[in-house]
Amino acid sequence: MNLTHPFLNLDGDKLREECGIFGAINAADASAATALGLHALQHRGQEAVGITSFDGKEFFSRRGLGHVAENFSSSEALAELPGFMAAGHVRYSTTGGAGLRNVQPLYADLASGGFAVAHNGNISNAQALKKNLVKNGAIFQSTSDTEVIIHLVATSRYPTMIDRLVDALRLVEGAYSLIVMTPEGMIACRDPLGIRPLVMGKMGDSVVFASESVAFDVVGAELIREVEPGELIRVSFEGEIESLRPFGQNNSRPCIFEHVYFSRPDSVFAGRSVYAARKAIGEQLAIESPVEADLVVPVPDSGVPAAIGFAQQSGVPFELGIIRSHYVGRTFIQPSDSARHSGVKRKHNANRSLVAGKRIVLIDDSIVRGTTSMKIVEMMREAGASEVHFRVASPPTAHSCFYGVDTPERSKLLAAQMDVEPMRSFIKADSLAFVSIDGLYRAVGAEKRNGKCPQFCDACFTGDYPTTLTDHSEIEQKSAQLSFADHKAA
Amino acid sequence: MNLTHPFLNLDGDKLREECGIFGAINAADASAATALGLHALQHRGQEAVGITSFDGKEFFSRRGLGHVAENFSSSEALAELPGFMAAGHVRYSTTGGAGLRNVQPLYADLASGGFAVAHNGNISNAQALKKNLVKNGAIFQSTSDTEVIIHLVATSRYPTMIDRLVDALRLVEGAYSLIVMTPEGMIACRDPLGIRPLVMGKMGDSVVFASESVAFDVVGAELIREVEPGELIRVSFEGEIESLRPFGQNNSRPCIFEHVYFSRPDSVFAGRSVYAARKAIGEQLAIESPVEADLVVPVPDSGVPAAIGFAQQSGVPFELGIIRSHYVGRTFIQPSDSARHSGVKRKHNANRSLVAGKRIVLIDDSIVRGTTSMKIVEMMREAGASEVHFRVASPPTAHSCFYGVDTPERSKLLAAQMDVEPMRSFIKADSLAFVSIDGLYRAVGAEKRNGKCPQFCDACFTGDYPTTLTDHSEIEQKSAQLSFADHKAA
Amino acid sequence: MNLTHPFLNLDGDKLREECGIFGAINAADASAATALGLHALQHRGQEAVGITSFDGKEFFSRRGLGHVAENFSSSEALAELPGFMAAGHVRYSTTGGAGLRNVQPLYADLASGGFAVAHNGNISNAQALKKNLVKNGAIFQSTSDTEVIIHLVATSRYPTMIDRLVDALRLVEGAYSLIVMTPEGMIACRDPLGIRPLVMGKMGDSVVFASESVAFDVVGAELIREVEPGELIRVSFEGEIESLRPFGQNNSRPCIFEHVYFSRPDSVFAGRSVYAARKAIGEQLAIESPVEADLVVPVPDSGVPAAIGFAQQSGVPFELGIIRSHYVGRTFIQPSDSARHSGVKRKHNANRSLVAGKRIVLIDDSIVRGTTSMKIVEMMREAGASEVHFRVASPPTAHSCFYGVDTPERSKLLAAQMDVEPMRSFIKADSLAFVSIDGLYRAVGAEKRNGKCPQFCDACFTGDYPTTLTDHSEIEQKSAQLSFADHKAA
Amino acid sequence: MNLTHPFLNLDGDKLREECGIFGAINAADASAATALGLHALQHRGQEAVGITSFDGKEFFSRRGLGHVAENFSSSEALAELPGFMAAGHVRYSTTGGAGLRNVQPLYADLASGGFAVAHNGNISNAQALKKNLVKNGAIFQSTSDTEVIIHLVATSRYPTMIDRLVDALRLVEGAYSLIVMTPEGMIACRDPLGIRPLVMGKMGDSVVFASESVAFDVVGAELIREVEPGELIRVSFEGEIESLRPFGQNNSRPCIFEHVYFSRPDSVFAGRSVYAARKAIGEQLAIESPVEADLVVPVPDSGVPAAIGFAQQSGVPFELGIIRSHYVGRTFIQPSDSARHSGVKRKHNANRSLVAGKRIVLIDDSIVRGTTSMKIVEMMREAGASEVHFRVASPPTAHSCFYGVDTPERSKLLAAQMDVEPMRSFIKADSLAFVSIDGLYRAVGAEKRNGKCPQFCDACFTGDYPTTLTDHSEIEQKSAQLSFADHKAA
Repeated sequence: MNLTHPFLNLDGDKLREECGIFGAINAADASAATALGLHALQHRGQEAVGITSFDGKEFFSRRGLGHVAENFSSSEALAELPGFMAAGHVRYSTTGGAGLRNVQPLYADLASGGFAVAHNGNISNAQALKKNLVKNGAIFQSTSDTEVIIHLVATSRYPTMIDRLVDALRLVEGAYSLIVMTPEGMIACRDPLGIRPLVMGKMGDSVVFASESVAFDVVGAELIREVEPGELIRVSFEGEIESLRPFGQNNSRPCIFEHVYFSRPDSVFAGRSVYAARKAIGEQLAIESPVEADLVVPVPDSGVPAAIGFAQQSGVPFELGIIRSHYVGRTFIQPSDSARHSGVKRKHNANRSLVAGKRIVLIDDSIVRGTTSMKIVEMMREAGASEVHFRVASPPTAHSCFYGVDTPERSKLLAAQMDVEPMRSFIKADSLAFVSIDGLYRAVGAEKRNGKCPQFCDACFTGDYPTTLTDHSEIEQKSAQLSFADHKAA
Repeated sequence: MNLTHPFLNLDGDKLREECGIFGAINAADASAATALGLHALQHRGQEAVGITSFDGKEFFSRRGLGHVAENFSSSEALAELPGFMAAGHVRYSTTGGAGLRNVQPLYADLASGGFAVAHNGNISNAQALKKNLVKNGAIFQSTSDTEVIIHLVATSRYPTMIDRLVDALRLVEGAYSLIVMTPEGMIACRDPLGIRPLVMGKMGDSVVFASESVAFDVVGAELIREVEPGELIRVSFEGEIESLRPFGQNNSRPCIFEHVYFSRPDSVFAGRSVYAARKAIGEQLAIESPVEADLVVPVPDSGVPAAIGFAQQSGVPFELGIIRSHYVGRTFIQPSDSARHSGVKRKHNANRSLVAGKRIVLIDDSIVRGTTSMKIVEMMREAGASEVHFRVASPPTAHSCFYGVDTPERSKLLAAQMDVEPMRSFIKADSLAFVSIDGLYRAVGAEKRNGKCPQFCDACFTGDYPTTLTDHSEIEQKSAQLSFADHKAA
Repeated sequence: MNLTHPFLNLDGDKLREECGIFGAINAADASAATALGLHALQHRGQEAVGITSFDGKEFFSRRGLGHVAENFSSSEALAELPGFMAAGHVRYSTTGGAGLRNVQPLYADLASGGFAVAHNGNISNAQALKKNLVKNGAIFQSTSDTEVIIHLVATSRYPTMIDRLVDALRLVEGAYSLIVMTPEGMIACRDPLGIRPLVMGKMGDSVVFASESVAFDVVGAELIREVEPGELIRVSFEGEIESLRPFGQNNSRPCIFEHVYFSRPDSVFAGRSVYAARKAIGEQLAIESPVEADLVVPVPDSGVPAAIGFAQQSGVPFELGIIRSHYVGRTFIQPSDSARHSGVKRKHNANRSLVAGKRIVLIDDSIVRGTTSMKIVEMMREAGASEVHFRVASPPTAHSCFYGVDTPERSKLLAAQMDVEPMRSFIKADSLAFVSIDGLYRAVGAEKRNGKCPQFCDACFTGDYPTTLTDHSEIEQKSAQLSFADHKAA
Repeated sequence: MNLTHPFLNLDGDKLREECGIFGAINAADASAATALGLHALQHRGQEAVGITSFDGKEFFSRRGLGHVAENFSSSEALAELPGFMAAGHVRYSTTGGAGLRNVQPLYADLASGGFAVAHNGNISNAQALKKNLVKNGAIFQSTSDTEVIIHLVATSRYPTMIDRLVDALRLVEGAYSLIVMTPEGMIACRDPLGIRPLVMGKMGDSVVFASESVAFDVVGAELIREVEPGELIRVSFEGEIESLRPFGQNNSRPCIFEHVYFSRPDSVFAGRSVYAARKAIGEQLAIESPVEADLVVPVPDSGVPAAIGFAQQSGVPFELGIIRSHYVGRTFIQPSDSARHSGVKRKHNANRSLVAGKRIVLIDDSIVRGTTSMKIVEMMREAGASEVHFRVASPPTAHSCFYGVDTPERSKLLAAQMDVEPMRSFIKADSLAFVSIDGLYRAVGAEKRNGKCPQFCDACFTGDYPTTLTDHSEIEQKSAQLSFADHKAA
């Protein structure tokens, strides 16, 4: 995770991304499996990708900007990554001068041998730890919080690698799912609350780890189980699998936004089908906030499962009132005599013939800054919709995430600034409703105790952060720029 | 269009693509509008793109491999294309050594001045015409059939440009929608049968032409009407619009496959919403070939509208049983110890939790070679579906297209080789049904007369080719390799 | 040759370049030999390079911007150019939008089969011929005068290829050394005056042609003889070599500037060692314009042989008073607080310790615009030289070349504007002298008859153009911009 | 310097290269001056280049493979490097997987702020120091010995930056000229023996440092003096210049090979013109080993000054019997039917007309492996030389360099394996002579005391290494592969 730029680069499409990791050990083509697995996790990070492999003697690394397919689909690329153990990482942002230095897996030659780590999450006391390490002579190569873990391992006084890693993680606070490679094997672990996802699978004789189960479908592996919160799973080259629980038993608090948005609908998260969870949220919405309408229209693609749920529950027909282009990416120069601003239409276009004269219910997964929602409502009206009702398949997002999700600072979150009625007015909808927090719990199979949800982290909706936030304690007030290093390299 | 390689490069994803064209005159940022318009037509051709502009004195061209966004989204790229008139082209294939030479618009300096042309379609007597031109000393730069038109214009003895163009087109047989630029203005025209689409729009004071109306939505223009079959529309720099009909009145025979597959669902084609047509085909299918099932599952994305129609007509719920990845493209190296072949899963993955134990109806737009259909049926069974019924939103595709569509030679078309029951057996479905040709006519608002459909070209289904096919007369038997030139250049 | 831009891009380093050609037939690795041969001719053109090969069935082409080594040193590049016949071209300029279209060899599919041509020289009635060809429907792909030859061949009514080529060349006026490839073999020819060079060699069983004999040294071939003025040499795949003289016997008028500057000193031109010719010019200079001095300093590298001759004749020691960098190329951003303008020093730097306090004789091959000479004189003075005498190893360059040399228009030639004394004042030298035209004749072994030199073309010094100049008749007065086409393509 | 690969990549052209550094402080365009300065030092390293700048707040870095001009000639590149202080580095090799990680300046964020260093030389106890640092938790980013200095600075317990640097350098053994940048200014220093060169100059109000004085000529700066052995020069942003001598007074032992080969002839090294030194060596050679001959022929370009000296002393005329191509670089595919191996001719070609039938004296700067010398002698004979006498402008190179010069291991040095007569036989010359070590001393103005030369390091000729060689003590025997890290990154 990138501590330097948590609040930058927040245009409409980038608001809510994080990272994905994959690892394979005892696999004949470990790097080929890792490339394919990362490709299936591409939705978790599109800006950069890296893979590190180990062939029993040496570690090999390759990193690149852009998609997995652009960097790792050739046999030449994979030939640079020999060996039967590999791990990789997709990330959402390389903004700033940092170039490839922050692309993971990070690697270091320690006195005990090579050490590679891929990390999904964010360490919330990384700055404090780094300051102390640098004071003692540590030299950081990246601006990544992940590098703190490596330096803590390097300077630990414990003799074995696993003890050094546990020693390091005891000092660390926040969210982390890690895949670590050493000359002795692979270690996968999840922070004590299990905030970010990590699953374990089996592919013939090899063991695989991934952020989401969909990666196992694509590589042809079988899902075994989730790595549990606070668990370290060590896999040796002889195939031994050992589970350690150095932090004792903890409450699990996985990120509820994986169900709302991050995970692919064909993944299973926290024991539940993501597609089923999203449909259930849509059904809750239809129960809680029904509306007389002619069509249920999803904002593609993230709103589709909830829209199907809403339509089935309400009896209002599901229709593709918005068509999504498959060719989204760069911004185009706008022709000046274009009749009206048409930027949003490159991605989403109204199905004019269908929508004209109809009362429609728009379903989207969440509202962050509100600007995209406003444009979509406007697009529906221009296409002739007689009424536009907006239904959101999550509660209002009113708090920043400090656990590895690229959300804007609080002051930019629409729901942190106003209530539902002004939000409705801002996006110019005829009506606006969010699913209730209780409805969300019900849809994902959670339940509230003492006004809180002990089974998930839902801090972005409730502000109930499950860890201390050493580096960020004043951030909510000051929107401080965090900056490990002022050095820009290319 | 490329005469050299009509039958090559036919893997699953490339079977049914063609080209798209866009032009703008009297527009302040003609090339910016053209880039954006072509971007909206990207689904019609992903392999190469070109734009030519005119600034009142000079013509400027820029071409590139890949998507519009990769080549024309920067202000630097557009700065190379100044002027108030521009036209562009996206195409599906640059296979062979031809490199950028075949990328359109094609341009030539004629005695009368510059001449640029963008062409969607295919000239079915290009070889015969070319042979004769070369015999008289013409030197071809490309292997494109489009260049024949330019040489015919160059050697015409008529004095005015419009007469030369009409003179040339009289010799040409087949399908063409053209956007022509000369120092006097823009000429848009469609072959006498109007096989390939072309629409005219208005954007402030400028006139725009495009293959599909969706391009007008995206640039912010207003659809005026279709260019009519056999019509030439001339637009001058003073804004005068003149319609010519040099070939008399003709039956219109637009390509019915635009409704089935090519056009975006938010386009209007032959006076009808494409989305509505596809939904109506799905409804016909449900009426003609109903089935007891738990879920209606579209093969994304082309099968979605028909699946919605089928679901609404049948009452079986519409569900996303297959999830499509947004990150499709290059092929990956397959890890050898992957449990089973997983290639197809990179693009389409079963929504396992939803499908397991269910009877499903799969809806796809068409079957070409059958191999993709077979893999998708198998994927559903592996995901636990108890029954897999396949419904196809078009009649069996039993004949090649010679009008600019990249279809395989007849012998590779599954429906040219066998009946429906052996096809069902080939793809291993529990049942298989195609919409009837009459059902298709009904859905698109056509009607049969004397056993034929006089309103559309449906040759791919019926073999009823509406023109003579000089170059191709023996092709059906011999699958001959057409080759204008043996010269490979890079 | 490029008719469009004969007068552009004339910074100091580009003033006096032309092109180089090489061909090999009946060679096992014809394209490898051609690449190496072109590399040895790289000094004749650094901006673009192309090779075309023939394998008995097909022609293959590859072109690129930049040096031969950047484009043709890999086995992958050569694998695209199979066959036992190949020819290539290096050229000095691709300025303008023409991109790769003007890079030679040019290729066309004629009715008689493939036709490729590499051309060194310039056709001085190309515009007139082109105008007529275009009027009859010819479509040009490039702005190169060479393409005129192809169209003349294509439209010739003679039945055989050799007759068509002779028919075409009869219409052509100016300078051309050509290497032509057809499916029947290779034809090398030189214009009736033999203005541009072309030599024939032998490499085992294969026949090779090149602009300069140094290319034979580098590929390991043996020089046989020059192709004679007005001669066509036809080499078949059976190894038959036939010499044709369709234009009768002519006076030979090879370009005397090959001796002065173009050819490498280790080449033999017009029967004489280029190095020996240059030394002899230096000796003439020392005889004609002696000077009391401490050091003879060449402007590297072109002034070195003449400086050695001057030093040996005069007894003044030869010393490297100017050091030339091997790493010249792109222009750098000049730091603003650099003590003085230092641009010229990137290429040439004074050997300060040597020069300080000395009287020096600078020797350069020629003066074109005079700006570089002025800077070099200034550099010598800044380095402490007490006197700077400038001696030029050619007569004043007072006339433009229309035979394929990239010289500026007349008005930019210093010697066209002023006499020797004002030139001396312009470049701020203590004395300035040019070798006399008679001295030059003597040095290269020519003699004057009736005030003219019938053995060489020396029009750049004397204005005595040996051909008519149809396209250029008014150029001297008007500095007209020649332009085949206004079309800019990338 | 690269400790990993000191003995690799030793083909003929790469045998004797090292690195170059340049720095500028208080300059308006510090990075532009640095780019230009490095360009003038390009002969010291062609494979990679980097520049780091400081704008008062932040450090900025940019690195690239290839030449300075390819990476730093655009205003875009320099715009990434703002500020009034900059330093850069050119290096000869990036072999191995290290990619850009080893390209200098190296940079680190220390507790005291940013720290950048450019290093010419080689630290001969780097391995021992690194092992100890890693044991204490240091993480290395590169395989460069230079990084050891940074870690020693980072872990020093002294409070000020200058004390930390001195503390670090006290532990370091070997050769180093350094340019260091910190937020307080620039520090330039040279090891106590001053083995590698470093000079100080003035450019307006700014202070500049460079490996050679020629860089000052090119940027328009004025040479002030050499940085002295063991001296640290600190320059502040207020323009204060302070000289420190923490290591006491030492004997100076600058590398004598700078005079023989490395430095440009227009540089001044150790108080003497390099051109004059080389001419003097040639004169010594003529005195010590005269020969009856017709021509003195230099092996271009490094043999030219000595050849001029030899010719002037002996009276045998200096002539260009070998012509050097300006377009050397990549290796070409050799055509199989090339009459003889012609590889060497791409770079050097015999001036056949001149050489034929003549007795020639070849002058080269040194003989390393002997293979190139053998080919050049053979080339002269093939060109018809009747006798070929080889004279070498340095004593036999019989010992490896451990101070930053890329020489082969001892066993590959021809002079380490045999005496002069067998060397003559190996290169097939008629006679062979090297300048004597005493003659060399005389030419460069040094003198011998007690059989040794106390003014220069001449270990490559004498084996008299002026420092201990901790890492290399067994290397001479074992040719051990040094390897900091097994990690290959791309």
